[in-house]
Amino acid sequence: MLSFASDYAEGAHEEILRRLVETNMEQLPGYGADVYCQRAADKIRAAAESPDAEVFFLAGGTQTNAVVIDAMLKRYEGVVSAATGHINVHEAGAIEAGGHKVLALPQHQGKLDARELEGYLRDFWADGTHSHMVFPGMVYISHPTEYGTLYSAKELGDISEVCRRYGIPLFLDGARLGYGLMSDETDVTLPMIAGLCDVFYIGGTKVGALCGEAVVFAPGRAPANFLTMVKQHGAMLAKGRLLGVQFDALFTDGLYERLGRRAIDAARRLKDGLRERGYAFLLDSPTNQQFVILDNEEMEALEKKVSFSVWEKVDAGRTAVRFATSWATTNGQVDELLGMLRSR
Amino acid sequence: MLSFASDYAEGAHEEILRRLVETNMEQLPGYGADVYCQRAADKIRAAAESPDAEVFFLAGGTQTNAVVIDAMLKRYEGVVSAATGHINVHEAGAIEAGGHKVLALPQHQGKLDARELEGYLRDFWADGTHSHMVFPGMVYISHPTEYGTLYSAKELGDISEVCRRYGIPLFLDGARLGYGLMSDETDVTLPMIAGLCDVFYIGGTKVGALCGEAVVFAPGRAPANFLTMVKQHGAMLAKGRLLGVQFDALFTDGLYERLGRRAIDAARRLKDGLRERGYAFLLDSPTNQQFVILDNEEMEALEKKVSFSVWEKVDAGRTAVRFATSWATTNGQVDELLGMLRSR
Amino acid sequence: MLSFASDYAEGAHEEILRRLVETNMEQLPGYGADVYCQRAADKIRAAAESPDAEVFFLAGGTQTNAVVIDAMLKRYEGVVSAATGHINVHEAGAIEAGGHKVLALPQHQGKLDARELEGYLRDFWADGTHSHMVFPGMVYISHPTEYGTLYSAKELGDISEVCRRYGIPLFLDGARLGYGLMSDETDVTLPMIAGLCDVFYIGGTKVGALCGEAVVFAPGRAPANFLTMVKQHGAMLAKGRLLGVQFDALFTDGLYERLGRRAIDAARRLKDGLRERGYAFLLDSPTNQQFVILDNEEMEALEKKVSFSVWEKVDAGRTAVRFATSWATTNGQVDELLGMLRSR
Amino acid sequence: MLSFASDYAEGAHEEILRRLVETNMEQLPGYGADVYCQRAADKIRAAAESPDAEVFFLAGGTQTNAVVIDAMLKRYEGVVSAATGHINVHEAGAIEAGGHKVLALPQHQGKLDARELEGYLRDFWADGTHSHMVFPGMVYISHPTEYGTLYSAKELGDISEVCRRYGIPLFLDGARLGYGLMSDETDVTLPMIAGLCDVFYIGGTKVGALCGEAVVFAPGRAPANFLTMVKQHGAMLAKGRLLGVQFDALFTDGLYERLGRRAIDAARRLKDGLRERGYAFLLDSPTNQQFVILDNEEMEALEKKVSFSVWEKVDAGRTAVRFATSWATTNGQVDELLGMLRSR
Repeated sequence: MLSFASDYAEGAHEEILRRLVETNMEQLPGYGADVYCQRAADKIRAAAESPDAEVFFLAGGTQTNAVVIDAMLKRYEGVVSAATGHINVHEAGAIEAGGHKVLALPQHQGKLDARELEGYLRDFWADGTHSHMVFPGMVYISHPTEYGTLYSAKELGDISEVCRRYGIPLFLDGARLGYGLMSDETDVTLPMIAGLCDVFYIGGTKVGALCGEAVVFAPGRAPANFLTMVKQHGAMLAKGRLLGVQFDALFTDGLYERLGRRAIDAARRLKDGLRERGYAFLLDSPTNQQFVILDNEEMEALEKKVSFSVWEKVDAGRTAVRFATSWATTNGQVDELLGMLRSR
Repeated sequence: MLSFASDYAEGAHEEILRRLVETNMEQLPGYGADVYCQRAADKIRAAAESPDAEVFFLAGGTQTNAVVIDAMLKRYEGVVSAATGHINVHEAGAIEAGGHKVLALPQHQGKLDARELEGYLRDFWADGTHSHMVFPGMVYISHPTEYGTLYSAKELGDISEVCRRYGIPLFLDGARLGYGLMSDETDVTLPMIAGLCDVFYIGGTKVGALCGEAVVFAPGRAPANFLTMVKQHGAMLAKGRLLGVQFDALFTDGLYERLGRRAIDAARRLKDGLRERGYAFLLDSPTNQQFVILDNEEMEALEKKVSFSVWEKVDAGRTAVRFATSWATTNGQVDELLGMLRSR
Repeated sequence: MLSFASDYAEGAHEEILRRLVETNMEQLPGYGADVYCQRAADKIRAAAESPDAEVFFLAGGTQTNAVVIDAMLKRYEGVVSAATGHINVHEAGAIEAGGHKVLALPQHQGKLDARELEGYLRDFWADGTHSHMVFPGMVYISHPTEYGTLYSAKELGDISEVCRRYGIPLFLDGARLGYGLMSDETDVTLPMIAGLCDVFYIGGTKVGALCGEAVVFAPGRAPANFLTMVKQHGAMLAKGRLLGVQFDALFTDGLYERLGRRAIDAARRLKDGLRERGYAFLLDSPTNQQFVILDNEEMEALEKKVSFSVWEKVDAGRTAVRFATSWATTNGQVDELLGMLRSR
Repeated sequence: MLSFASDYAEGAHEEILRRLVETNMEQLPGYGADVYCQRAADKIRAAAESPDAEVFFLAGGTQTNAVVIDAMLKRYEGVVSAATGHINVHEAGAIEAGGHKVLALPQHQGKLDARELEGYLRDFWADGTHSHMVFPGMVYISHPTEYGTLYSAKELGDISEVCRRYGIPLFLDGARLGYGLMSDETDVTLPMIAGLCDVFYIGGTKVGALCGEAVVFAPGRAPANFLTMVKQHGAMLAKGRLLGVQFDALFTDGLYERLGRRAIDAARRLKDGLRERGYAFLLDSPTNQQFVILDNEEMEALEKKVSFSVWEKVDAGRTAVRFATSWATTNGQVDELLGMLRSR
């Protein structure tokens, strides 16, 4: 059955598989000390224009969020997030399991607002009882967000500026970063992210790899003994090469950008087709996740032919659903989906 | 450089890679709900002769230990382990990070002794102050152990019997299980382990897979909502297929056994060659890890030509080193190593 | 300086001190196994009309919340609370430090709404992704709330009914329970609470004791080895007598009720006096905490003569402040405060 | 029944009670911000000859150990302790519940050995796999130890010197410090402890107070926001005065020393009497806990007349028991106990 259910429905891009096969019988040291991890880190530093950044490779997004946040926070600190942030909703309490509160602020199409953040931080420090409260020790944002939306360069800069004024690190979850960077509607670049954030990660799992997220710490911002924290969280692969080879391939000859571009082109084709057919959207997403409003009967009929995510009820008769394109989506698949949707 | 440093120096067996490539573009559901995970689980149930066992796939050993132990213990319980147990020494405190004490008992070539275990449990419950102490809530053993040694069927049965008498689960860490099952000197089988343990895992990472451990719970012993605990620990791969396809391949046409056999044959060849040359061993290991005693100068010279692990100091002039064979070790590699070692 | 800052500004009621002095040189077993803890538990069971309830004594409120919640939740569960709940705001992350998320629902003058609770639970279980989310494992309410408000018998019954339908325990934080029970405007009694909740506590610290909270589990609801959890949280006093003697005194000859009554009478006198003088209230509190709206200059002048809590900004020129009466407040003190406040 | 079961069998010294009664109706700020906490802290700084030390008051020993250790360690660090240390055996896993491993070293009559400690630290840092291990982040000792034994000034200095060489803090658990300082056989003073340790505490619960431990950080060594950690652990009393008034009394006119002296004198009288009667000791304790070897029948007969602790089995027919004297023990009580023990 055709699937627009997620951007992790296929395996890996063929070039990644080819490199895994080619390097397979090389005897390499474990735990990320191999030459492919080093090469991948070098290429990422170059792409981010941050020659002194520190780069680590982990296997998945929830894991990466938990390790980075736990490693950077003090015991009495929590992490500020939009209420819809992945860490606040869909990580089964991984952050709290590490002992830290997620300090949820209102979300605006999945995004934090710099002024609200500033107000929250100002109020916290002005509150005479704050020593009885969880200290805000970090700000977490995702880009793209859980709603596929993007921060503008101005918005990102404003949030970064607030964080620096209050002396707390800014962490950007880039599980779908490739789709954000290649959006037609963004003015945010990888070097800009590297400059504005204290730590961020470049998602591989959802952008063409079998698994893997590349964590990038700004110069001097990596916590001491970070690898021991990775190990403690059970997040260190013995065969670190699995991550190194994949990211080495992703950052060779612009593969990561091409994969991002493919999903964006497919999403654009889908969006245009849906608009032509008169469909309404829950919000205007500039990336690979499109949130479309369907009549309930229409949705139920469609579910028999294609898989997608039921997102949220709009009203008694209508529901918003999510169609996700990916690096692997073909124009043919988009057209097949559009063919199932009659004009309204 | 030739490497006997570990059993995770190469990538994956070619048959596993072949299956990853073949299935790569199939669109599959995430998080382990795909058909390959189901097939692999079925094959493992068959191999273990435990048709009602529950099988889950995780990425690595430390992660698996942490998730299983955390999911099965109550908050006031700890896990009993030999002092040399991996969870007590080399997991960076992953068990304690989950809030649980490792209750270390004496080790005998890496193994727990059933009578000592029984004595410990009896004394605990007889102690008038035990409500102020950490309760023993689980017993952890590894097979093979960190020293490459194996429990006999009798030893394993005795430990299991003690656990059942005291009502606490027995957990067997099988990160290197393939090498234990195929040893010439074992009377322990996979169905026997499935019958005596409440939960165990079948290691993939060190036995031919890129990554992956298959956790097997005896019927009715899986904790409620185990998958949510897996997610909370950051241990759930979005592309669960990566694990499913690999274990499906490992448990097809006896591949797992053949991989285990290859390492054992290589280890035997190495052991025989070392004995012929007059080398002494730290202990008599029946599996793929061989602990050999070298003069310090000999060791230092050898380090320039082959990589291996420095294990422990024996006396002022001698050191025990570990040579690990694997599913990928060739007779030629063994002979190359032996050729570097002069007769004594 | 006159203080209406809190209900824990004085030491203990003289009768409690008298009993501490009288029993001081008796040699008693530690850790709550003494005769006074037993007597106090018996008297509490009688007052709650719950002869099979289990009663434990802890030192303070945050500690009690953390121990009870941690002992009753599974690792993948969180606790539902009004957003203004003490555990969500003013316990420095004690619940999260134990690994559990506080699942915040909207508050209505500090209270949860049974229908919103029911909707939340229904939506959780209907959500196809709930295995990736924190499970609601308990409902926490406070009575009186942080705003001094009270649940009606009907409201409490409705919440209890929802909890039972969904199979999750209801926990009532009664740090100020005495003031709630003796309010003129309540139809909730101690036996009713004991019947509707799975666990609740009777606050001593804020109702006349030096320290101490009495935790009451409904029959069969106390977690196994609860005392070990108390010890693990560092919440077990060696001289448990300190708590036993105090609660024995509080539940002898209706002392607890008399102390509650005194604070309510004082609060009523204050409320009436404020109303006569034309003051507005942030909300209508039926207990010992009164939230009064002052002009900012008035507030600043008053701060020099009496201590109270600045609660929240109402608008640019006005602020809500809290005056708390207690078991120790005299009519003279109330009149002194009223004398400082001119008619408006 | 006569009790030598513990040093916390009675309430508080009468002078402490007198001061609690005298100050009872003063209206004071909560959470340790009252004038009595300040006075007590000043007196402790003076007694410790450490004018810039920071002093905090907590309620009990396990709580204090958990809060101090959790506040001072990084997430990947554990605390080194003698295997018999209270934190390793009798705190129900409170340290592990906070996420930290207790790194147990051999004990010598309850004490750590400086050379063994140095060897352990040296080996840790020399171990090529140490990034996969729990880092030693702190050293915990108790003085007196769980066996009533004392470090000499030389031994304490040596341990402190090792800690400083390796850059890790030294924490001294002084739950029974008063009995250690007043021993006839010690050359360790309070100022010496303040100079050699990074943090220590002065036990009140076991030395004449109803509850309370005074934590003393060397200048500049208190963790940032320590009070928030205290709150998070549920260890902050609303009526902090309860601790402040007691320690103010204990450090006025040498009361703490007199209470220590009384227990030592009583222990000496007991020890002399036992020796005269020909009894053997498990070890030679210079403080208020005496470990005496009894024939089993003798022990069982004695248990009917006096309460004491059964410590450990010596051989088939004999058991070591503990008699604890305290600040409240009279010569008459000692003589009564001795009268029950026939000469051998």
